[in-house]
Amino acid sequence: MTNGFGYQLVHRDSGSAARRGQFVTPRGAVDTPAFMPVGTLGAIKGLTIDAVRATGAQMVLSNTYHLALRPGETIVRELGGLHQFMGWDGPILTDSGGFQLFSLAKLTKINDQGAIFRSHIDGSLFELSPERAIEIQEALGSDIAMVLDHVAPLPCDLATLREACDRTILWAKRCRDAATRSDQAQFAIVQGGLDEELRLSCAEQLTALDFPGYAIGGLSVGEEPSDMYRTLDFTCPALPEDKPRYLMGVGRPQDLLEAVRRGVDLFDCVMPTRNGRNALAFTDEGPLRLRNLIHQRDLAPLEEHCPCPACRHSRGYLRHLFQADEMLGPILLTAHNLTYYQRLLAEARAAIEADQFPAFYRKKMTGWGEQID
Amino acid sequence: MTNGFGYQLVHRDSGSAARRGQFVTPRGAVDTPAFMPVGTLGAIKGLTIDAVRATGAQMVLSNTYHLALRPGETIVRELGGLHQFMGWDGPILTDSGGFQLFSLAKLTKINDQGAIFRSHIDGSLFELSPERAIEIQEALGSDIAMVLDHVAPLPCDLATLREACDRTILWAKRCRDAATRSDQAQFAIVQGGLDEELRLSCAEQLTALDFPGYAIGGLSVGEEPSDMYRTLDFTCPALPEDKPRYLMGVGRPQDLLEAVRRGVDLFDCVMPTRNGRNALAFTDEGPLRLRNLIHQRDLAPLEEHCPCPACRHSRGYLRHLFQADEMLGPILLTAHNLTYYQRLLAEARAAIEADQFPAFYRKKMTGWGEQID
Repeated sequence: MTNGFGYQLVHRDSGSAARRGQFVTPRGAVDTPAFMPVGTLGAIKGLTIDAVRATGAQMVLSNTYHLALRPGETIVRELGGLHQFMGWDGPILTDSGGFQLFSLAKLTKINDQGAIFRSHIDGSLFELSPERAIEIQEALGSDIAMVLDHVAPLPCDLATLREACDRTILWAKRCRDAATRSDQAQFAIVQGGLDEELRLSCAEQLTALDFPGYAIGGLSVGEEPSDMYRTLDFTCPALPEDKPRYLMGVGRPQDLLEAVRRGVDLFDCVMPTRNGRNALAFTDEGPLRLRNLIHQRDLAPLEEHCPCPACRHSRGYLRHLFQADEMLGPILLTAHNLTYYQRLLAEARAAIEADQFPAFYRKKMTGWGEQID
Repeated sequence: MTNGFGYQLVHRDSGSAARRGQFVTPRGAVDTPAFMPVGTLGAIKGLTIDAVRATGAQMVLSNTYHLALRPGETIVRELGGLHQFMGWDGPILTDSGGFQLFSLAKLTKINDQGAIFRSHIDGSLFELSPERAIEIQEALGSDIAMVLDHVAPLPCDLATLREACDRTILWAKRCRDAATRSDQAQFAIVQGGLDEELRLSCAEQLTALDFPGYAIGGLSVGEEPSDMYRTLDFTCPALPEDKPRYLMGVGRPQDLLEAVRRGVDLFDCVMPTRNGRNALAFTDEGPLRLRNLIHQRDLAPLEEHCPCPACRHSRGYLRHLFQADEMLGPILLTAHNLTYYQRLLAEARAAIEADQFPAFYRKKMTGWGEQID
């Protein structure tokens, strides 16, 4: 059994399903709802670990599949484990490789035993089973390990969805049985596509296994946002109240608030970092495209009251950096976007504590130019 | 006339020509000998301005030619001038474009009037004259403007060297006459290749013009280090004692100490930043190539007592970042190398103050594996 992990409710919003809590781990507590920046290869692209901390992040994510290929989990372990490797002493969550198995690898074979596929780097054969996914994550030494899941593409016929769901439940059990580290908690992953019956059945069977946390997987894979929100509508209530709920790989700022008001606690997404590298900055008035000529002579910062290092410069300077291919452009916009996401979640937490989440939600959505029901 | 600039001698080493001083500017004093990191396009590649400051830099350099092409000096002026643009409130030195005219541009015509050449970006025609070089630098608002000089390639016949020297002196006068800002000091540039007579004649004529500072240009353009040191041997004593001396575009750590012991006060070079981006780290034991397999499982930092952000990680992690093409590799090695250069100059200043520069010089050169005379 794992020790030192737990979810503590601080306040439940009376006007929505949003909840303010703390996810307690041996490496510190995470105020939820929370956003985890993505450090795919043991680095948040473009930021020193101090710069990551300065955005307000309390917990980061790293990718099992990518680290297993480069530099290899035994190298990470020999270099002191993932925390020492990347210099992050807070909690780290690692995914299982299930999503990369779906999105990146040239899959050659998948069955109940596991998956064999070709690496996207050099085409070499790579095997992933529930046991191997846990073995890698234990070598990395993350605080939270995700079970190996089978992600189905959307849209998808019901038989395939059901098979992926059954396999995900089977693999969750095997992951749990494979665990040898008491300092690593495993989160189960609910699959089932957009189908209510499958989602509820999957949630029920996984809940019976009593994992320390539950993720909602298989969303943000191309479906309409409204389909994702509808799926959250029926999936969130099926998850245990006393465990953290993690919506994997989501998403835009509006997706985060839609999920928070349905009761989600944890998020990760490459959007703030990837979009930042591509000159897109998130703001309360919606995204800014910094390559646009309109910013050429603009003395204003991205946002007046943002404490990030980008917002000490003018939009004109930031545009210049991108036009001149200076590394500092991606660096600064990555810092801004991660700071923006952290500020957004911090504001959401404050709004829930003040029992005013719906008003906060409406204000933000209006600022972004979103339609509200 | 310019106000608020001056050179103050703190201590002269008794065993060499090394001198510890302060270069006073309206934006603060610079402890000399000093190294200026290069911010070609208004950014030190890969570092936020706070990260630049954290390396210990007191003064930075930026490039007139590059900024005139992108984003254009009028844009920089409209965005508050170069200091506000890049967020650096300390002194900034801008070069004149003379070196890029030599190294980068496809030169079409150069005569006493000026130079017309094609931009390396888009092939458009670009004119540079002494008056235009000062006009651009005044629009940028740097604290120290360099006069436009004519850099001759090495090796070079004496007639061409003499012509470039004469033109450099002519242009220095015209730059001085073109100045309209009292808050910007101009440095003259001594040319003359490796020829003693030309160097001394150039230094004498420029000294008579009483500039606030003097640079030694036209070195580090492919000649042997020993030729550069020999040229410094006779050029440094020909420069005024009461003005800062700046060796342009130099160089390796050993070049810096060789120049310091001959009486040079200021340096700039892309080597720490460019080499850092290419996985080379400077250390007291000589350079480390981080892509080397030997570092794969190495838990040691680049240097045990270095305060830079790279040295909080293992060499194994730094190697991984380069192998995985993570931006953080270039970022961290840039920070390390600039910190290394700043530490080296800080140690040199302390050694001069302690009147022990030769012993310091020998210790460092031995560590780098250099032969000492």
